Amino acid sequence: MFDLIAYTNCSHSPVVEDAWQMPSHGQADGYTDLGFWTDLATRLERGGFTALFFADAYNVANQYRGRIDPTVRRGEQFPENDPLPLLSALAGATDRLGLVATASTSFYPPYLLAKKLSTIDDLTDGRLGWNVVTSVGDLEFENVVGDYIDHDERYDRADEYLEVCYKLWERSWAADAVRRDEETGTYADPDRVSFVDHEGDYFDVPGPHMCAPTPQRTPVVFQAGQSDRGRAFAAQHAEATFSFHLSRAGFESYVEDLTERAVAAGRDPDALNVYPAITPYVAPTETEARECYERVLDGIDPETGLVRLSNHLNHDYSQYDLDSPLEDIEVDGIRGVLNAFVDDDQTWTVREAAIRYARYPTVELVGTPSTVADELEKWGEAGADGFVVMAPLVPRQFVDVADYLIPELRERGLYPETVEPGQTLRERLFGGDATVADTHPAATVGERD
Amino acid sequence: MFDLIAYTNCSHSPVVEDAWQMPSHGQADGYTDLGFWTDLATRLERGGFTALFFADAYNVANQYRGRIDPTVRRGEQFPENDPLPLLSALAGATDRLGLVATASTSFYPPYLLAKKLSTIDDLTDGRLGWNVVTSVGDLEFENVVGDYIDHDERYDRADEYLEVCYKLWERSWAADAVRRDEETGTYADPDRVSFVDHEGDYFDVPGPHMCAPTPQRTPVVFQAGQSDRGRAFAAQHAEATFSFHLSRAGFESYVEDLTERAVAAGRDPDALNVYPAITPYVAPTETEARECYERVLDGIDPETGLVRLSNHLNHDYSQYDLDSPLEDIEVDGIRGVLNAFVDDDQTWTVREAAIRYARYPTVELVGTPSTVADELEKWGEAGADGFVVMAPLVPRQFVDVADYLIPELRERGLYPETVEPGQTLRERLFGGDATVADTHPAATVGERD
Repeated sequence: MFDLIAYTNCSHSPVVEDAWQMPSHGQADGYTDLGFWTDLATRLERGGFTALFFADAYNVANQYRGRIDPTVRRGEQFPENDPLPLLSALAGATDRLGLVATASTSFYPPYLLAKKLSTIDDLTDGRLGWNVVTSVGDLEFENVVGDYIDHDERYDRADEYLEVCYKLWERSWAADAVRRDEETGTYADPDRVSFVDHEGDYFDVPGPHMCAPTPQRTPVVFQAGQSDRGRAFAAQHAEATFSFHLSRAGFESYVEDLTERAVAAGRDPDALNVYPAITPYVAPTETEARECYERVLDGIDPETGLVRLSNHLNHDYSQYDLDSPLEDIEVDGIRGVLNAFVDDDQTWTVREAAIRYARYPTVELVGTPSTVADELEKWGEAGADGFVVMAPLVPRQFVDVADYLIPELRERGLYPETVEPGQTLRERLFGGDATVADTHPAATVGERD
Repeated sequence: MFDLIAYTNCSHSPVVEDAWQMPSHGQADGYTDLGFWTDLATRLERGGFTALFFADAYNVANQYRGRIDPTVRRGEQFPENDPLPLLSALAGATDRLGLVATASTSFYPPYLLAKKLSTIDDLTDGRLGWNVVTSVGDLEFENVVGDYIDHDERYDRADEYLEVCYKLWERSWAADAVRRDEETGTYADPDRVSFVDHEGDYFDVPGPHMCAPTPQRTPVVFQAGQSDRGRAFAAQHAEATFSFHLSRAGFESYVEDLTERAVAAGRDPDALNVYPAITPYVAPTETEARECYERVLDGIDPETGLVRLSNHLNHDYSQYDLDSPLEDIEVDGIRGVLNAFVDDDQTWTVREAAIRYARYPTVELVGTPSTVADELEKWGEAGADGFVVMAPLVPRQFVDVADYLIPELRERGLYPETVEPGQTLRERLFGGDATVADTHPAATVGERD
């Protein structure tokens, strides 16, 4: 059975930044408005989506022309609100939808974030997923913590950060710690609540955890690292990854690599779901699907893509002629970022790359429910446990997935017919227990009872 | 007209820690549950309350017997969840109730918190208040940030922290910055969104702010500092203070002092509301009111009060005989903390002080709507703009206030009959604008348009 995770962020346009100008995109007006979000979550749940995923960043990109002006003008993930405060309202409006939100290990003190996420796991009845990021932009580090932390050190630090969180979530409170024994006036048994006494390279956290055990204890860990160090981190910690791969061959070798690393880390690879990012344009007819796709493409200004490309590659693309061939440009790491969608045999101009990158390197699927489901089946054979659905037009394209694609997947036996309310997100994704699998490092960090 | 602010926190028992053992206290079971909170907020709004206020801390007190065990066993503000994630659900369940939550300037990076509070101000349609605290416990500093920061430096740092927030909230985005001009592809005008370039003793924050202007920009600033430095801070920044005073004379001199300081800081004292803390036991008959009061008193174990007293005075009260006179004990600052309720002419035992302190030094009002309203009128004449209602039994005592006290106050013309939905919290508290008064330092930190 597939999972379908709807991707968004709390900006006007989560995927294609120019979408604020496009019709059928309610998020442009709605992203600051509670009613927009509760309505979206309700529709997603009713339509059968597994979860709603929120990206987040604190970055204002300043690589393009060396200024923030193009980011401000194009609205490249800016302005952007914080998804964490939103989740309780979405939990109130739904009773099955998973709720996944991004929080950076580089920016929150771990003791503070552990309390915050425990609170949300309580308020969502265990439907919380945490997308772990380490953040990347110069300006966000400067704004939030002052000093930049280099890529590999960010991950070393994140490793220890998660260890701290696991100790707080899994070890500090025994399952039977809360007693509420009126005879002796004992709210919790002091022998069953303990310090965690973490002393490490980056953090010293004595504990105890502020919160009693929540339905999942550790929220479902999502991760999207693609670098070598990022994959090592994901293999260690992630219960779900989302990845960008245009070619199934590339995706298959990614899954193979990640599985090998997870097994080497002592983990059960069945407790690690991999979700490639897709952008479905699905409609009753091929023509309607293509019309929607073309409308989105027509609405993209190449500069919007260049701002994002400059940001992600830390290189100023304003200096090139839009019609010059991409292959003439030597930028460190460009293949690493673009390999997902640059076919080595194909010649791209800067303009073409910009317009493509403005849509992220997702798998774009344009067609009828039947042809799109055919494609997804093939990705399933390549190892996909489901998909992160990245849609330029929200809620329009999510509604199309719910109305057209999910029924087709259900007919093929690839998608659950119904989901019982009351399940935690982890139970929904993996069956089994509400708490982490025995081989996950959160489980092995210490005895729980 | 009075305001009534319902006080709570996300623990089992917000005021009297032993309340988890008492009947008519739904929060003991409900504090982790979204439905409990949305139900409470709905009742408060329907009953006419102005706002719901959430305290918060990251502290596990370890002064009593030098261990955390008594805190764990008595449940002294532990476990305790984070109120910030809860507010959007409460905003969805209500449309008039103000929502005030505590966040510590010592624990959140200011750039991160400014984004979070802006998000909540959006999601609540401008009904957010921020209770500014600097935190106090050894263990919470050790857990969250590593090093302890001394009292006066905490306030110096908080002064600069608020300056950073004000710059982000008030100066970074002009009112007309968001253009959404499809002709030129301009989401926001780069000339109307600016860096704030804050460089100070404690923080360097270039900006710009991540969020477009929200309904109130700066949330309504609440503060409860009682020390000399705390009052100076409140006079500078607070739009609402809540304070502990048992005697009206003490309260009057506090109001006088605070007003003087506010005027000296160039502020309009009418834009600063003062709310003493009260605990009303109100019922149709004196007998019923007294029965409820006695039940609460009977449920308090002196040790619970000693744990809190030890925590707040940073002194281990386990060493004294419960029946020894309090006056024999020399503890630095004890008069400062206890002056609100220790009458100099009265002899207290350690036990009596413990049982009293377990209820906080609030004004306890036990009686019929008429006798309680008489008392509140007198506090109004002494300068109270309203009251923070601290109730051991939640929702029971809030419901009693709504059912019995508010109608009585309305009959006397002391409480608004209805409140229009759509007002921001600041408009509700002060009339006037949704944004801060012209004399508030947030307004003077820089031009807004």
